[in-house]
Amino acid sequence: MNQAFPSTLLEEAVSEFSKLPGIGKKTALRLVLHLLKQHTDQVERFGNAMIRLKHDVRYCSVCRNITDHEICPICANPSREHKQICVVENVREVMAVENTGQYNGVYHVLGGLISPMDGVGPASLEIDSLVQRVATEQPDEVVMALPATMEGDTTAFFIYRKLAAYPVSVTTIARGIAVGDELEYADEVTLGRSIVNRVAYKG
Amino acid sequence: MNQAFPSTLLEEAVSEFSKLPGIGKKTALRLVLHLLKQHTDQVERFGNAMIRLKHDVRYCSVCRNITDHEICPICANPSREHKQICVVENVREVMAVENTGQYNGVYHVLGGLISPMDGVGPASLEIDSLVQRVATEQPDEVVMALPATMEGDTTAFFIYRKLAAYPVSVTTIARGIAVGDELEYADEVTLGRSIVNRVAYKG
Repeated sequence: MNQAFPSTLLEEAVSEFSKLPGIGKKTALRLVLHLLKQHTDQVERFGNAMIRLKHDVRYCSVCRNITDHEICPICANPSREHKQICVVENVREVMAVENTGQYNGVYHVLGGLISPMDGVGPASLEIDSLVQRVATEQPDEVVMALPATMEGDTTAFFIYRKLAAYPVSVTTIARGIAVGDELEYADEVTLGRSIVNRVAYKG
Repeated sequence: MNQAFPSTLLEEAVSEFSKLPGIGKKTALRLVLHLLKQHTDQVERFGNAMIRLKHDVRYCSVCRNITDHEICPICANPSREHKQICVVENVREVMAVENTGQYNGVYHVLGGLISPMDGVGPASLEIDSLVQRVATEQPDEVVMALPATMEGDTTAFFIYRKLAAYPVSVTTIARGIAVGDELEYADEVTLGRSIVNRVAYKG
């Protein structure tokens, strides 16, 4: 669809919105027109929130999570288990694991996954800082909570090899049938892994 | 899901994004983290495009369409048929009708539809300015291109009554079976209207 914009300002705003992942031209126009209907101070709050975040964002000097301070609230919390480091792709996964309420260790945020297709190599991720941390902090366990994708598996294997020289137990989150899912709809690889990695029945 | 944001700046940006229609907290976080990965000037371009649009946007003094000038390109175009006014809800519908290439008249943008549920009455729409235009410009035809919803029908009926005092032909776009659609899947109202409003077969 050739969009004949009646205003270049409108066209620019729509063009910026449609650069976001999963936002097409039509959705972008809908969102821009919605914002245009709001009060000026609301629109300024929207635009400036993003600019301010980009300017003032900091990354925890220990785990590289997004934070407002030198050290993030999780790393600064003395009641967390600092000998257990969970390796995740991004801040989203930190939040997802935190929301389970099942983990009391600390994190290490890689900032992405190894992906030769996208030109992301190990050097552009926080892998060296993880190895450095393992060397100095001497944790008991590194839990890899990476996605079960090609990139996730590649990254996990790369880290596993890097950590082999250190006396640390490297584990990975369980792959298996999601809670509430029917077995017949699960793919064979997942079902297969869930059988191989079966655990003792706890009643 | 209770989101434990590690940074208030991040939380604010996500909160602003999730005020947009159809954008939930998870999508907002995804979009904000995507923007955070971009260069600073790209993020500033994004934030400022919206703020600048809000500050500098103008509405055509004739048809109320969004424009950069006093009068929009369509109203300023002498080769358009100025005796034919198409009434639409918003700039999106102007663009949609323009994209068909089937209309060479001008527009009148209402800026919304009558919706008592949302507290939108006729006075907050550009209906008076339409009546004023019909009175002074004396067009041959007013084509109503409003959605086939309760709000659209209410607005069309209200405008129809307002224009009854003037010697203008008021028409409405055809409702019927969409091109490419099967008859058996059409709802009865649409199919019924398409039979009542049948047109001469043109081979």
